[in-house]
Amino acid sequence: MRVLGIDPGYNIVGFGVVESNGNKVIDYGVITTPKNMPMSERLKVIFDATNELIDNFQPDEVAFEELFFNNNQKTAVPVAQARGVLLLACKLKMDNLYEYTPLQIKQALTGVGRAEKKQVQYMVKSILGLESIPRPDDAADALAVALCHIQTNSVLTDNRV
Amino acid sequence: MRVLGIDPGYNIVGFGVVESNGNKVIDYGVITTPKNMPMSERLKVIFDATNELIDNFQPDEVAFEELFFNNNQKTAVPVAQARGVLLLACKLKMDNLYEYTPLQIKQALTGVGRAEKKQVQYMVKSILGLESIPRPDDAADALAVALCHIQTNSVLTDNRV
Repeated sequence: MRVLGIDPGYNIVGFGVVESNGNKVIDYGVITTPKNMPMSERLKVIFDATNELIDNFQPDEVAFEELFFNNNQKTAVPVAQARGVLLLACKLKMDNLYEYTPLQIKQALTGVGRAEKKQVQYMVKSILGLESIPRPDDAADALAVALCHIQTNSVLTDNRV
Repeated sequence: MRVLGIDPGYNIVGFGVVESNGNKVIDYGVITTPKNMPMSERLKVIFDATNELIDNFQPDEVAFEELFFNNNQKTAVPVAQARGVLLLACKLKMDNLYEYTPLQIKQALTGVGRAEKKQVQYMVKSILGLESIPRPDDAADALAVALCHIQTNSVLTDNRV
């Protein structure tokens, strides 16, 4: 099974494609949008790039990181707007969409819900048999959510989105 | 000029179509999505309905209410996700997209930035020459942002989105 992991954002969207059989990396990277571009145009760039990702890699399932905003973050609205577009782009092409909280991702990869970011990144490198931690962080985060999905029993959890 | 006003949401999206020449209502109403539907599917319902609105009414410009979350609202993420999809749906079909803050809308319709909701609704009814205040509130809010756009000099302001 091929899983596309997505770390939502509007400046940078991280993506990672993992083949579950052997936890093999197919590709990873980021979609970026220019800061001076109107928001609606940036959302279109993200939409088009996501369509291209799905067409190129033909994932069976997609896993998204969930958003939480417990303090007054200025970026909450634009990040969530981009996440809506990412969900839509995938939904228009496929049905198997899942989401995981940062806690679930840390738990799945390190066994500890409060693990540090570096520990999660180290496990991404280790599980995927890479020589170094994938860069940038957004791509590593996307690979982490893909691995979390592969390691989670979807029948027992309720992570459909 | 025909303006489509949109009050973003995920349970309910308000819309209102106004012809600026004479402030004539063409139509107004809401798009709703079922609570038990997965979020990605609800976003698709909103996307499809927005496409239909634009195809049916052929607006020249679209005006969106801006989102602000200054306290920790649980609905911030899903509302903003839906707003991203609404922006995208419009952007894929047209270029003239604008957004206005609640304060700008109140100011434009009543002359007072801190006007009460009822006062804004009364002005919507009055400006559009309706017999009663449009229902539900989401539709009235959408007509309000359309009227705000019509009454705002876009050359002097920077409300493109």
